Amino acid sequence: MPTTIIVGGVAGGASCAARLRRLDESRRIVIVERGPHVSFANCGLPYYVGDVIQDEAKLLVTTPESLISRFNLEVRVLTEAVAIDAAAKTLTLREVEGGREYQESYDELVLSPGAKPLRPALPGLDLPGVFTIRNVPDALRVRRFIDGHAQPDALRAVVVGGGFIGMEMAENLRLRGVAVELVEGGPQVMPPLDPDLARLIQGRMAEHQVGLHLHALLQGVEVSANGLRVRARRGETDLELTADLVVLAIGVQPENGLAKAAGCELGPRGHIVVDDHMRSSVPHIFAVGDAVQVRDAVSGAPTAVPLAGPANRQGRVAADVIAGRDGRSARFRGTQATAVLGAFGLIAASTGLSAKSCVAQGIAHATARLHPGDHVGYYPGAKPIHLQLVFDPHTRRVLGAQAVGEQGVDKRIDVIAMAIQMGATVDDLAEAELCYAPQFGAAKDAVNLAGMIAANHCDGLSPLARLEEVDPTRDVVVDVRPSGSSQPPCWAAVQSIPLTELRQRHRELPQDRPVYVLCNVGQTAHNATRMLRQYGIDARNLSGGERSLELLGGCG
Amino acid sequence: MPTTIIVGGVAGGASCAARLRRLDESRRIVIVERGPHVSFANCGLPYYVGDVIQDEAKLLVTTPESLISRFNLEVRVLTEAVAIDAAAKTLTLREVEGGREYQESYDELVLSPGAKPLRPALPGLDLPGVFTIRNVPDALRVRRFIDGHAQPDALRAVVVGGGFIGMEMAENLRLRGVAVELVEGGPQVMPPLDPDLARLIQGRMAEHQVGLHLHALLQGVEVSANGLRVRARRGETDLELTADLVVLAIGVQPENGLAKAAGCELGPRGHIVVDDHMRSSVPHIFAVGDAVQVRDAVSGAPTAVPLAGPANRQGRVAADVIAGRDGRSARFRGTQATAVLGAFGLIAASTGLSAKSCVAQGIAHATARLHPGDHVGYYPGAKPIHLQLVFDPHTRRVLGAQAVGEQGVDKRIDVIAMAIQMGATVDDLAEAELCYAPQFGAAKDAVNLAGMIAANHCDGLSPLARLEEVDPTRDVVVDVRPSGSSQPPCWAAVQSIPLTELRQRHRELPQDRPVYVLCNVGQTAHNATRMLRQYGIDARNLSGGERSLELLGGCG
Repeated sequence: MPTTIIVGGVAGGASCAARLRRLDESRRIVIVERGPHVSFANCGLPYYVGDVIQDEAKLLVTTPESLISRFNLEVRVLTEAVAIDAAAKTLTLREVEGGREYQESYDELVLSPGAKPLRPALPGLDLPGVFTIRNVPDALRVRRFIDGHAQPDALRAVVVGGGFIGMEMAENLRLRGVAVELVEGGPQVMPPLDPDLARLIQGRMAEHQVGLHLHALLQGVEVSANGLRVRARRGETDLELTADLVVLAIGVQPENGLAKAAGCELGPRGHIVVDDHMRSSVPHIFAVGDAVQVRDAVSGAPTAVPLAGPANRQGRVAADVIAGRDGRSARFRGTQATAVLGAFGLIAASTGLSAKSCVAQGIAHATARLHPGDHVGYYPGAKPIHLQLVFDPHTRRVLGAQAVGEQGVDKRIDVIAMAIQMGATVDDLAEAELCYAPQFGAAKDAVNLAGMIAANHCDGLSPLARLEEVDPTRDVVVDVRPSGSSQPPCWAAVQSIPLTELRQRHRELPQDRPVYVLCNVGQTAHNATRMLRQYGIDARNLSGGERSLELLGGCG
Repeated sequence: MPTTIIVGGVAGGASCAARLRRLDESRRIVIVERGPHVSFANCGLPYYVGDVIQDEAKLLVTTPESLISRFNLEVRVLTEAVAIDAAAKTLTLREVEGGREYQESYDELVLSPGAKPLRPALPGLDLPGVFTIRNVPDALRVRRFIDGHAQPDALRAVVVGGGFIGMEMAENLRLRGVAVELVEGGPQVMPPLDPDLARLIQGRMAEHQVGLHLHALLQGVEVSANGLRVRARRGETDLELTADLVVLAIGVQPENGLAKAAGCELGPRGHIVVDDHMRSSVPHIFAVGDAVQVRDAVSGAPTAVPLAGPANRQGRVAADVIAGRDGRSARFRGTQATAVLGAFGLIAASTGLSAKSCVAQGIAHATARLHPGDHVGYYPGAKPIHLQLVFDPHTRRVLGAQAVGEQGVDKRIDVIAMAIQMGATVDDLAEAELCYAPQFGAAKDAVNLAGMIAANHCDGLSPLARLEEVDPTRDVVVDVRPSGSSQPPCWAAVQSIPLTELRQRHRELPQDRPVYVLCNVGQTAHNATRMLRQYGIDARNLSGGERSLELLGGCG
C-alpha cells in the first residue's frame, strides 16, 4: 500500500490529506503535526485574544478523531518530523512528549510546515510578556495574560509590526480595553497598500487611540521599574515605550529546516522552491503552504504569500498530482495575493500588483484613483470606497487593485480579483454587469467607474496625472469646482475656473503646456478635461482629486 | 452644427447625453423628457414610499439646470415627442402644458423611452387608490396617500405581482406599517430565481406578515363597502381581498409607440430591435434602455432586461457610435441580467441563466446547490448563503448563478457575474483567489466551493444528482449523516449509514444501480460519494442535501 506522509496538519496539509483520501481510498495517509491540534483556525487567533471569538473550541476546525473516522487518516499530533532521508525515502519522527524517535517510510512526502514569526536577534525578546502569535497555544497565552489582570483596560501593549497580524492584534487588544502603541519600521502600516490608502487606516488608528510610531526600528525589550521597556530607533532619535505586554508581529519566515536538510532548493528568502505541481527539487517531496515560493500570477515573478486560500489550493494540487491526476486541478496557477484586513471599522483589501510594486519591478503601469460610494448616495448609509486601480496603459490589462472603506470593499476587490485571474482589461471592468439596487451599488458601480476612468486614460480621452508628480507652484493647475466651496482648497494658489464657466473661459489657460485639472474626486475634472482637450489644451485629470491629495498628505 | 436629439432623460438617455458631450463639444444635444425630471433615481422610488429615503429631492440625480450649465445640453422637460419623420429626419414635439407642437430636425435620434407598467384591460384599474410605480410623481402619489391617513398602520394594501418592484413595494409598505397581501399569477415570487430559492423568500414574507397568494390571476378591482375589493382567480376558486390601496407591479412593457410609428422593427414582445451599436432598423435612429431588445450575453438569444446598469452602458455605446468612435466602447456586449433584490432582511441575486431558463431554452446544463456560510463559522455572525451554480457539464463553462441569504450574497453573485462575462469555467471559480479574513469569507469561499463541486461533477469524481429526480420509495438513497441527528430526516424511509461507518458497511449497498447519497448540505455526501465510487458503487451526491430538500418542499 503506497504511503503518503504529510508534515503539518493545518490549511495546506489538511486540504491535501482530505482531497487525497477522496481520490484514493487504498493509500496510507499519515499526518504529522508538531502541535496538539490539526487544522486550527489560525486566521481567527487575534479574534480569540479580543474575545470576539469567545470559545477556544471554535478555533479547532476539525479534530484528529474526525480525520481518522471520516478520512481514515493516521494522525500523529505532538509529533515532530526531524529528518528526511530522501534517498531511502524515510522520515524520522520524534514524539514531542517523551522524545521517542522512529522512522516511517514514504512513497511521497508533503511538507506543509508553515511559517513562523520572525524573532530578530535582539535583547529581551524572550522575556515574559513578549508574545508572538502563530498557533492556538500562543493565542491562549496572550488571552490568559490579559484575563489574568483584574483591569485589562489598565494594561499597556506595544505591538511591533503594522502588517496584517500586527493590525489585527492592535485592534483586538483595543477591544479588550488595552492601551496600544504600534511600532512599525517602515513608512506606513499595511505594506501591500500604496501610501495614500495606508494613511486612511493610520487616521483611523489615531481615532481608536492607537499610538503609531512609523520608521521606528525595534532595538530590544528590557525590564523596567513599571513594566517592560520597548526600545526603538527612529532616525537619529531613540524611542522608549513602556508596556505590560509586547506582541511581535514583524513578519514570518518559512519553516524550512527539514526541507533544507533534505536538500530541497530554497529561494532567496528561504522558501521551498516548487514547480506548478508543488514538487520540490527533491524527488517524491512536495511542499505547500506558507513555506513555499510560488509564481505571482500577474507578474510571473517568484513570490511567497502566507495566506490560507493559496495554501488550501496548493494542498489540493499536491493531492491530485500524487493521485496521478493531470490537467487543471493538478497545477497551481500561482497567486495574486488577494488579501483583506478588517480593523478599526475599516476594510482594506488588495489583489494583484500595487503601484509601488510595479515601480519596484519596473512594470509599465498607470493608476486610477477614485472615491465612489459603496452604494448610491440617495439611499441612506452610503460610505466612500477609496479605490485604486493599477493597469497596463498599453495592453489595457488590469494589474491590481486596492481599496479602503467601511463597507463594500471586499466585494469590489473580489470582483477585480476574478477579473485579473481571467486576464481582464479595463474595458471588461467598464462593461461588468454587477448587482444593482440602491442598497448594494450603483448603475455605474465602483468597478465600472474604475474601468471607465482607466479606459478613458488608455484611449487618450482623459489622461490621468498623478498628484505626486505635479507641483502647483510650477505646473499649471486649474481647480474646476464651483467657486465658493465651503472648504478651503489644499492647494490655495491654483487658478479657479468652475466647470460651468470653462466653456467661456478656457482661453485663460495655456495651450503650450500641460494643464492639470483638479476637483474633489476627479469626476468634475474628467468633464473639464474632456472639454479642454477639445479646445486644444493638453488637459490632464489629477486622478483622485483633492480627496487623494489629502490622503497623500500633500495639502498645504 | 450636427444635432442629436435624445428622447427620454433618465438612465440611458442621460448617460448618452453626458458621454456624447464629452466626446463632442461642437454638437447640439437636445434632451426631451415628458416628465418634470431628468435623470431621477427610479430604483429608489419604492424606498421613498417606505420613508427609507425621506427627502424627495434625493431622488433627483441631476437637474435640467445642471445638465445645461455643465454639459451645455438643451433640456426640454414636460415635452413629449409625438412623431418622427424618419425620411425628413424631423421630430415633432408637444409641450405637455399648453399643447404647443413644433418640429426639430436631427442628425441622429436616440430613443430612450423606457418601459411602462403593464395595465391589463381589467375592470377598476383606474379607480382612485390603484397605483403603479414608474416615476417620482407616481411614488409621491402613493406616499401622499399613506401620509394622508392618520394611522398608516391601519391601512391595507394589495400588491399585484411578485417581481422586483412588487417585492420592493411590499417591503416598503410593511415598513410603513401597512398590512400587505401579495397576489402573484405564477407559482412563485421572483421569477428569475429557481423555485427552491424563491421559497426562501416566501418563507420570509410570511414572517413579515405579508399574505402571499400564488397562482392567483387578477380579475379586477371594484369599490366595496369598506374599501377596494381586489378579485383574483386561483384555479377553480375565487379570491377576494379588501384593500385601501392597490399597487400594480405585474411587469412592464416597452414604451414603443414612437418607434413603431417611425417604422422601427420591433421584437416579439414589442421591444425595439437594435444591433450591437444600438442602431434601430431605421437609419439615424438609435434606441437604448428598457425599451430595447438586446442579446443575452450567455445564451446569445434575444432578450429584454429592464435594468439600470445595461441602460447606462447602452447610452454610452450610442454616444460613442454617434461620435464616430469604434472598438470596444462602441459595441454593446449584451446583457447577463445580473440583478439583486433586498427585501425582508434577505438578499436575492442572480446572474446569467437559471436552471429553469436552461430547460426552457434546451441548453445542456447541470446545477450545483450549496449552503456555505458568508464567512467562516468560527467567527460570530455567519449566515448561510443558499447558492445555486448552473454550468455546462461538457464545456465546463459557468452559465449562471443565483443566491439568497442575509449577507454576502451580492458579493458572490458579482464575482460570478464577472467570471461569466470573461467566459470562465467552473475550474476558474475553484481557483479564484478571493479576500479572506474570518469576517469576510473563508479560505475556501462559497465561490470556490461552487466551482469545486461543479468540477468534481464534470470530472465524474462526484456526480451530482437532482433531488427533484429522485424518489426515495423507488431509488436507493443512503443517508450518511451521523446517526442520532437531533432533527428527524425529511425522507424517513431511507437507509442510514453514517460516513464514519461506510468503509465497513459499503457492501450493504447495491452495485447494480445508482445509489443517491444524502446529508445536510452535500459535503459529507461528497466524501461518501467519493468513497463509494472507489468501492465500485455508482454513488451520486444529492446536491444541496436536506437543506435543499426542505426548500423544494420535498419533505415528509
